[in-house]
Amino acid sequence: MTDLHTLSLSALAARLRAGDTTATAIAEACLARVEAREDTVKAWQFVDPERVLEQAARRDRETPSSALHGVPVGLKDIIDTEDMPTTYGSPIYADHTPRKDAIMVQRLRAAGAVLMGKTVTTQFAHRFPGKTANPRNPAHTPGGSSSGSAAAVVDDMTPLAFGTQTSGSVIRPAAYCGVIGFKPSFGWTDFTGAKHLAASLDTLGYYVRSLDDLPLVHAVLNSDALPGAETTDIAAPNFALCRTPVWDRADECAQALAEATADRLGNAGAGLRTLDLDSGFARVLEAQDTVLEYEMARHLATERSENWDLIAAPTQEFIRRGEDCSEEKIADARYVFDQARADFTKALGDDIAITLSAPGEAPKGLDSTGNALFNRMWTALHVPCLHLPVDAGPQGLPLGVTLIARKGHEQRLVAAGRWAATALDLPLFG
Amino acid sequence: MTDLHTLSLSALAARLRAGDTTATAIAEACLARVEAREDTVKAWQFVDPERVLEQAARRDRETPSSALHGVPVGLKDIIDTEDMPTTYGSPIYADHTPRKDAIMVQRLRAAGAVLMGKTVTTQFAHRFPGKTANPRNPAHTPGGSSSGSAAAVVDDMTPLAFGTQTSGSVIRPAAYCGVIGFKPSFGWTDFTGAKHLAASLDTLGYYVRSLDDLPLVHAVLNSDALPGAETTDIAAPNFALCRTPVWDRADECAQALAEATADRLGNAGAGLRTLDLDSGFARVLEAQDTVLEYEMARHLATERSENWDLIAAPTQEFIRRGEDCSEEKIADARYVFDQARADFTKALGDDIAITLSAPGEAPKGLDSTGNALFNRMWTALHVPCLHLPVDAGPQGLPLGVTLIARKGHEQRLVAAGRWAATALDLPLFG
Repeated sequence: MTDLHTLSLSALAARLRAGDTTATAIAEACLARVEAREDTVKAWQFVDPERVLEQAARRDRETPSSALHGVPVGLKDIIDTEDMPTTYGSPIYADHTPRKDAIMVQRLRAAGAVLMGKTVTTQFAHRFPGKTANPRNPAHTPGGSSSGSAAAVVDDMTPLAFGTQTSGSVIRPAAYCGVIGFKPSFGWTDFTGAKHLAASLDTLGYYVRSLDDLPLVHAVLNSDALPGAETTDIAAPNFALCRTPVWDRADECAQALAEATADRLGNAGAGLRTLDLDSGFARVLEAQDTVLEYEMARHLATERSENWDLIAAPTQEFIRRGEDCSEEKIADARYVFDQARADFTKALGDDIAITLSAPGEAPKGLDSTGNALFNRMWTALHVPCLHLPVDAGPQGLPLGVTLIARKGHEQRLVAAGRWAATALDLPLFG
Repeated sequence: MTDLHTLSLSALAARLRAGDTTATAIAEACLARVEAREDTVKAWQFVDPERVLEQAARRDRETPSSALHGVPVGLKDIIDTEDMPTTYGSPIYADHTPRKDAIMVQRLRAAGAVLMGKTVTTQFAHRFPGKTANPRNPAHTPGGSSSGSAAAVVDDMTPLAFGTQTSGSVIRPAAYCGVIGFKPSFGWTDFTGAKHLAASLDTLGYYVRSLDDLPLVHAVLNSDALPGAETTDIAAPNFALCRTPVWDRADECAQALAEATADRLGNAGAGLRTLDLDSGFARVLEAQDTVLEYEMARHLATERSENWDLIAAPTQEFIRRGEDCSEEKIADARYVFDQARADFTKALGDDIAITLSAPGEAPKGLDSTGNALFNRMWTALHVPCLHLPVDAGPQGLPLGVTLIARKGHEQRLVAAGRWAATALDLPLFG
């Protein structure tokens, strides 16, 4: 068995480019890792080794069209694929294969990626958990809803996997599993062909094991570069420690880690201030629930009328509340969003916020995927979020921080993430 | 030949409920009208009379499940239908039939509507015109991109048809054809399964011939009522004449009509003020171009790479600009939106803005669908817009006004529209 499965996307791309390995050898190593670990981790909803090897063999015969050429990719099972089942984590769609790839899947195929398979999602990317365990300790949740994608990347089954975030579904699993998680600005990557939970919040994101990988993925998904995002040779950024209006509800170990991390960045030469968000922002959390419920009730209307009994209880509850939501209430919630989005850009400016990714370490048990309390506001604000795994907590499970730039400033965010990882001496390169 | 095709959705629903007519008789009348007029109007991309009559016969055997039961509906050919071709107005999709209905189509079927067929759209709901002519004068454009839907409703081919708006694609055709057009708040109706042009702007809207119809359609699409929207027995609304930062670019006849209409509403007892938008709002127009270009380049990336030569020149130009758009520029454009959305809610409050729906009468010729200059800002602000046809201009073609409420206040908007139509003595009821 080779160690190819342990390498980052960038490292694999470099070896492929140099002719030092093949897509087939990489696929074989990743499939062997899945074979060895899947009984414990349960990250996958669908993997067909034969199809993976077929794709890899084809990629080996082609001229590479991008850095992702020949690289394995996992897709959260909320994303439509025309040649693999797509269940949305729901028994309603147990036998469902879409006719068309999601647009992001079209782009991955055009870029030469090897689609490994579909990763486990909570039901409809909402709360009801799938089967996945946390690879760091299988008695604990990996977080959700992008459970399988986070677990597969941290467990070396694939160097890249995609998730979606409507509340905290990319960043929280990244925190619980201890892997780089990136949620771009809302609207920056095309969501067409992924199942909507709440269209005004749904955002594609992804997991990788090296910060060097982010510009490569971004270039394929967004048809543009992140210039400067491949270097750390930038002026020290200005960070702003943001405790958020719900800071008190985090575990002490998580609070302490965020504060210590901010201090270390300041000591390393970064600017550092605190960013206090006024009461207008506290209302964003409640508004996010309202918008989520309202939109869920509409997106899932057909499932609701035809298969109500097959919808999990927590999702039923959200749908019911969404149906009961008054026009006044949803309009007010949207207005809270509009104001907070404009205000946050002003408050943050060109600084990088540093804050919590989760209330603490991954909770024990697989019957809940944990709490999105520290992610929901940022999703609602449409800002890009980058999770960096920094340390371990008292239970030996990962802790980390979220870095945030203002909307659309992914380049600044990724560059700051590189600067921070260097200052903190984190093994997130290569 | 009966006159059933000339009746409004509400009138047809009442007759069906009373047992005075059948879905089959209505479908036959509408199909006869299509047969008589389609050579001139060219509103339809696809109609199969046999399938329409089959649906109608089935509806006649069922117990009605909604006010739309047995009522014919036209669907802009940008909206996926699993049993009818869906071309998106593009030769690339000439033979395309989706596997799944758009969610709004699922809802219409569940409500018992009879799907008449697919109406002509401009290519990808962007600028390149389809074949449709203005029923009021076939030498003139019907507007776009929802050309066929507006023309079909005003020409009595169907009592209800759906369109989509990303710049001015619902309201401008309503203005040029002289029919009621309604674009709800962004995010209020599910867009899943309609082809995105720019996901952060795309909104479903529709055309009807009676204000009584709006709550019936709204109830089916949104699973909620518009309480109060079926009465005119409300306190006189407060209107705010909004000339917009580009008022000077409208024809004098259009300006005069909007001003006279506002005065008549004031004289009828409504509150009336002017609403002046500061320079921040002027920037919304430019930002709307930026966001549209940026998102088009991403949504149409596959078509761009595989079938560039089949994309119309104006659309190619937008895609190219979107690809060249810098991170800074798109981020700034989104920030302009955030600010303007929050500011507009504050500026308008609970009043109803009254403004232009188009720069003037429908331009002569079918090689352009006219200018969205007076619609684009409202689409970007995500506010609900209701077009009322009020009068005819010097060429005998329709002129009207757009009424606007703040985001999410469709109920207030529709009620104010009823009040205004009554005060102006417009034949828009029944």
